[in-house]
Amino acid sequence: QMESPDISRKVTVAVIPGDGIGTEVMEPTLGILEAVGERHGLEFAWQHHDWSCEYYTRTGAMMPEDGLEQLAAADQILLGAVGFPGVPDHVSLWGLLIPIRRAFRQYINLRPVRLMPGIDSPLVLREGTEIDFVVVRENNEGEYSEVGGRMYRGTPDEFAVQESVFTRRGVERAARFALDLAASRRGSLASATKSNGIVHTMPFWDEVVHDCARDYPGVEVRDYHIDALAALFVLDPGRFDVVVASNLFGDILTDLGAAIIGSIGIAPSANLNPEGEHPSMFEPVHGSAPDIAGQGIANPLGQIWAASLMLDHLGHPQAAAEVVSAIEASLTSGVRTRDLGGTASTTEVADAVLRHVTS
Amino acid sequence: QMESPDISRKVTVAVIPGDGIGTEVMEPTLGILEAVGERHGLEFAWQHHDWSCEYYTRTGAMMPEDGLEQLAAADQILLGAVGFPGVPDHVSLWGLLIPIRRAFRQYINLRPVRLMPGIDSPLVLREGTEIDFVVVRENNEGEYSEVGGRMYRGTPDEFAVQESVFTRRGVERAARFALDLAASRRGSLASATKSNGIVHTMPFWDEVVHDCARDYPGVEVRDYHIDALAALFVLDPGRFDVVVASNLFGDILTDLGAAIIGSIGIAPSANLNPEGEHPSMFEPVHGSAPDIAGQGIANPLGQIWAASLMLDHLGHPQAAAEVVSAIEASLTSGVRTRDLGGTASTTEVADAVLRHVTS
Ligand SMILES: CC(C)[C@H](C(=O)O)[C@@H](O)C(=O)O
Ligand SMILES: CC(C)[C@H](C(=O)O)[C@@H](O)C(=O)O
Repeated sequence: QMESPDISRKVTVAVIPGDGIGTEVMEPTLGILEAVGERHGLEFAWQHHDWSCEYYTRTGAMMPEDGLEQLAAADQILLGAVGFPGVPDHVSLWGLLIPIRRAFRQYINLRPVRLMPGIDSPLVLREGTEIDFVVVRENNEGEYSEVGGRMYRGTPDEFAVQESVFTRRGVERAARFALDLAASRRGSLASATKSNGIVHTMPFWDEVVHDCARDYPGVEVRDYHIDALAALFVLDPGRFDVVVASNLFGDILTDLGAAIIGSIGIAPSANLNPEGEHPSMFEPVHGSAPDIAGQGIANPLGQIWAASLMLDHLGHPQAAAEVVSAIEASLTSGVRTRDLGGTASTTEVADAVLRHVTS
Repeated sequence: QMESPDISRKVTVAVIPGDGIGTEVMEPTLGILEAVGERHGLEFAWQHHDWSCEYYTRTGAMMPEDGLEQLAAADQILLGAVGFPGVPDHVSLWGLLIPIRRAFRQYINLRPVRLMPGIDSPLVLREGTEIDFVVVRENNEGEYSEVGGRMYRGTPDEFAVQESVFTRRGVERAARFALDLAASRRGSLASATKSNGIVHTMPFWDEVVHDCARDYPGVEVRDYHIDALAALFVLDPGRFDVVVASNLFGDILTDLGAAIIGSIGIAPSANLNPEGEHPSMFEPVHGSAPDIAGQGIANPLGQIWAASLMLDHLGHPQAAAEVVSAIEASLTSGVRTRDLGGTASTTEVADAVLRHVTS
């Protein structure tokens, strides 16, 4: 279901733990990757980078001027989490995360939404409901544009504008990726739109999605307005297979998706350059969580699951599946961090996954 | 908590049932308003309008050219629901609903999110959790702008843009309305933002909200990124009192809000011109539901609850409270439409409310 741009044995991975709990969940994840790699003949070379808000307060930038060039030399990128009180979010993110997503044309953000065994959903689910779908988020354009600004600053007439930009190329490659994925799964694609309210860009989105869908007669495509779709994530999550969404809609839907599978701490995210011309980036959905940083209680499963998405992208679906199974086995065995109602530490959970991976 | 622009005895109400179930839920609602009005010395004059998609297919427009002038003569507007297969949503909505919201400067969209007695939430709620908050949605600008268009149509280079426009005046009046409301309730305001991703407009939104908040030392204001906020509607809905949001964010949050209170069929919406210079408009959150139209099984409670918001806006909070109590009593008595797991018809539910209102 994913491209296999690289099935060589040696993989260079740029590692950016970032801030807060990012640094705590990254280290044990590398140990797990090494163990799985050994069984599958994969050898990892880690390229560590301390780029973070802490780095920013020291240097005035989130990464060095040649940061993107350094990353370009790596095969893949593992990111922890970025953000720290005192550094405005739009500085930390537009100084690191978003430039990486764009420079390396990581135009797909792939986010599985799957209820893991032993985890309680906060939803009352009908008997037999399975939550197991994937959100394909357009990751390079749309509502996240740099085009815009302010006028009449500081006066009562002040206003701010921001342009949403949707290109045929941009929507089409997201739609085709999602259609391919749906064709390899249960053949159903939900497209998030708002063509009744947002008059210029969303009817265009619909048009492009349906133009592409003509090449996939085996996939059933259905449009949902984003408001109704958010409601259905809560009322009927079992109906979804693949969901394709714009940058902003995908952002909202995937946090909601993480909520309905019982923990933001578990959900993973892959920023893919599907062609493999550039490194892709793998990160947990959760943030740096300064409130619990330094206590050793952060849930490492989001980062570990993200690592498994990297194995998949590297063309090792079997290795990827073993990591997911190990996550499931550790959850079933009851070793859980506080966010899941347990008492285990970050290390204890990671060790449990490691044991299952090597057993 | 709401303005009382009109405490006169005679009220002219423009009634636009619209399409589908809109026409089925409107009629019994008028009967209930008449009954409550009689007890409170309010006399209603109904001004019926058949403006709808059906009207559009007949005339080529959603309403007559002087439609807005006709409405301007009324004190208030009751809307059912608009939309019909075959008429594109953006035609039906930008031809009726949205022009009304804008022409009459209904810059506040007020949507209570309250779990009613006897209704099951689709969420697993912690013992003692009460869902009882109000979303204040900016209703005139933001992401719903007409500014934008397409270039290179039909070529691979095609793109579409749409400008989000936030004015200080527009954000400020929404923020102040929400702050006033929070001050009259539990003193807590959540502001929906995305200042880490949307770089021009959302940091501006935050600035204006906090500028206004300085005048309300008794209200605690907290910013939430829209993605995290959507997740919290599911994970911790009991924490909210008043939520203020932009047009699009408010749209998404209120459908999600309707979902967590167990039925889209119940949630009401008030499009307010708080100063009372122009008519306000009251409508259910649900749509025209062509799939169940004509069967007499639509839930009328959203429309009836919307009517109670009108009574409140007319300066009759006591009458409004009686309607809400009658809705609650009818739900507790078990008379429910199919969407709530019952077997009652639209008329049976409306009759039950009517009985409680007049008893
Ligand atoms: C129908 C649509 C344009 C409208 C909106 O998005 O405003 C509706 O969803 C609503 O919430 O009233
Ligand atoms: C931090 C923020 C800019 C980012 C986004 O909105 O893309 C995050 O929420 C995510 O989903 O990866």
